[in-house]
Amino acid sequence: MSPSRLETFADGVFAIAATLLILNVDAQVPGDVGNLGDSLIHIWPSYLAYAVSFVTIGIMWVNHHWVMTQIDRVDRRFLFANIGLLLCIAFVPFPTRLVAEHIRGAGARDAALAYGFTMVATAIMFNVTWFYASVHQRLLRADADRAIVTGISRSYLPGPWIYLGAALVAFVSPTASVLLYLAIAVLYVVESSLFGN
Amino acid sequence: MSPSRLETFADGVFAIAATLLILNVDAQVPGDVGNLGDSLIHIWPSYLAYAVSFVTIGIMWVNHHWVMTQIDRVDRRFLFANIGLLLCIAFVPFPTRLVAEHIRGAGARDAALAYGFTMVATAIMFNVTWFYASVHQRLLRADADRAIVTGISRSYLPGPWIYLGAALVAFVSPTASVLLYLAIAVLYVVESSLFGN
Amino acid sequence: MSPSRLETFADGVFAIAATLLILNVDAQVPGDVGNLGDSLIHIWPSYLAYAVSFVTIGIMWVNHHWVMTQIDRVDRRFLFANIGLLLCIAFVPFPTRLVAEHIRGAGARDAALAYGFTMVATAIMFNVTWFYASVHQRLLRADADRAIVTGISRSYLPGPWIYLGAALVAFVSPTASVLLYLAIAVLYVVESSLFGN
Amino acid sequence: MSPSRLETFADGVFAIAATLLILNVDAQVPGDVGNLGDSLIHIWPSYLAYAVSFVTIGIMWVNHHWVMTQIDRVDRRFLFANIGLLLCIAFVPFPTRLVAEHIRGAGARDAALAYGFTMVATAIMFNVTWFYASVHQRLLRADADRAIVTGISRSYLPGPWIYLGAALVAFVSPTASVLLYLAIAVLYVVESSLFGN
Repeated sequence: MSPSRLETFADGVFAIAATLLILNVDAQVPGDVGNLGDSLIHIWPSYLAYAVSFVTIGIMWVNHHWVMTQIDRVDRRFLFANIGLLLCIAFVPFPTRLVAEHIRGAGARDAALAYGFTMVATAIMFNVTWFYASVHQRLLRADADRAIVTGISRSYLPGPWIYLGAALVAFVSPTASVLLYLAIAVLYVVESSLFGN
Repeated sequence: MSPSRLETFADGVFAIAATLLILNVDAQVPGDVGNLGDSLIHIWPSYLAYAVSFVTIGIMWVNHHWVMTQIDRVDRRFLFANIGLLLCIAFVPFPTRLVAEHIRGAGARDAALAYGFTMVATAIMFNVTWFYASVHQRLLRADADRAIVTGISRSYLPGPWIYLGAALVAFVSPTASVLLYLAIAVLYVVESSLFGN
Repeated sequence: MSPSRLETFADGVFAIAATLLILNVDAQVPGDVGNLGDSLIHIWPSYLAYAVSFVTIGIMWVNHHWVMTQIDRVDRRFLFANIGLLLCIAFVPFPTRLVAEHIRGAGARDAALAYGFTMVATAIMFNVTWFYASVHQRLLRADADRAIVTGISRSYLPGPWIYLGAALVAFVSPTASVLLYLAIAVLYVVESSLFGN
Repeated sequence: MSPSRLETFADGVFAIAATLLILNVDAQVPGDVGNLGDSLIHIWPSYLAYAVSFVTIGIMWVNHHWVMTQIDRVDRRFLFANIGLLLCIAFVPFPTRLVAEHIRGAGARDAALAYGFTMVATAIMFNVTWFYASVHQRLLRADADRAIVTGISRSYLPGPWIYLGAALVAFVSPTASVLLYLAIAVLYVVESSLFGN
């Protein structure tokens, strides 16, 4: 099988999951709102959550794109691993809404945990997908770039632990936990803009 | 006509149907929920239903992908058969929500039946699509792999009966019926991971 | 510009518009429904409306596909005409829901008219798109098939009138009007399955 | 990295954002509406808002398409700039609903401002994306058309200011502001249909 159809399907899921995020913002402003301006300002966590999740899904898309440049062919197991990965990514809009809605209320801790555990699961699936393909060069191109392959491995391994750490911070301060999710996305963009290619 | 645009359209429907499943989970947690943590735990059937349907749609996508590797060209009848197939697949989010919402209530049997009948219809359409293309090698590539063609035929034929059986179990036990839907997906992934290519 | 990116965008809109139709069915069954089985039977017009609109959008996708096989290049005006066409197609889920919800009630006539006028607008945009591309062979391939080009022109011209006729029937009988929309889709599939290629 | 996967992802976001607009129209007609015909006429601003936003997103898609024809390769920074751009475009359905719902009420000014600021942000991101790629020919094709490159630069620079102006008009007259958004889209289509290629 060729990798191109996997890319079409994956790009579809990435694009839809990212674009559906706006429904969460939309649902925060009911039709019979009192003062629209106040309401639009009051829901500022929704905008921030929208931006963080959109950029995070965008980063995942860039990563997937980057992995696929090193892949020569796909097999059933790799396709199923990708389905598991996409299952996690398509889940992101749900905890995003929870965080946007509850970060200022009693549900802040549980919302931050839900977001973090979704990210941990996603990071684990990125590792499963990548190491299945790369161990013993199983699915890699014959001319796969050794430096890129090692670089991906090194950057994926700490992913689940970083998000687990950020999630557990929610037991102390849900706000700090959510700021860490934001910081992870911002740092990733800055770092790979400076040093990536 | 070339098969590539059919793949783009089909991949779009597969990706959207799978990604829309999260809206069902989302709708289970109203904005004014009491205790968010309790609520997130209480809706566990939604997570399971999400995962089963996402993986089931993913399996169907892999199957469609696999069929298309053997197809040389498409004609109008084949396109219409595919539209019928995609019509069934795009329907899946609806019975998925019914199962998630009703499996612990009075509507369990009807929800399990709705899910099962959708799967039966989908499996029938997979057969219609495949046998239209493969009988007398109508649309197959000249170098289509005989073993693969026979393998697809053999694996598609029992599909509707398996799902019909699982659906009818709902008259005895809706929970058992739903566990069978889960088992079918898991077995398929395990089996074709071990023996597929 | 090459036509391929127009196809990607158009296929996206076709696939999403078709897949969103299931949200209309879903919205007909509230979470706190009394008897689920009765409710699932009671909403049968939703299933029919879903199927008719899905197949109709599918037919439009096949037509668009068919037109594009004759197109060599695209210009800005052709892209804008396509955006107008896709605007109409993306609108279809709305009147579909109206018909499903109101065909047995006081709003039957208005729902049937809304559906019909959407189809008239879509058929007009198909003509605009096609004749802009085909008059004086403006955007056609040098080796465009004369018989196919004439065939498309002949089949597109009556489209708006047929749907206008079916829409106006709603003033006498909304049900008859809706049955005509169904008949148009069925006849198209049957006819082009028998005589198309 | 090759630009083609960026196009697939971007086309997905464009197509979904445009197609989701119909959900805003749909939400304006509740299921238990009194007189359906009156209700369908009463929500006319929704149709206009739908058309303006659909065409505006379509114009953005044409522009993105046009930029990409001049691009030879993409790097991480360009991908992230595109994610920022798509984040703005996927946001459009939200202010579109606000305008449709509030333009005749007390929230008219705030809705018009929300729409305008979204467009300003989108126009800024178009500039960021384009000038990152084109300054010093960083990512342009070796044979990029000098006239096209200069033309894009010249047409993008005033974009944010034009939309800022139209937005600020909302402090005097929200209706005039919204009519300007409409006029910008119409003028763009007419102008580039006449002089574009």
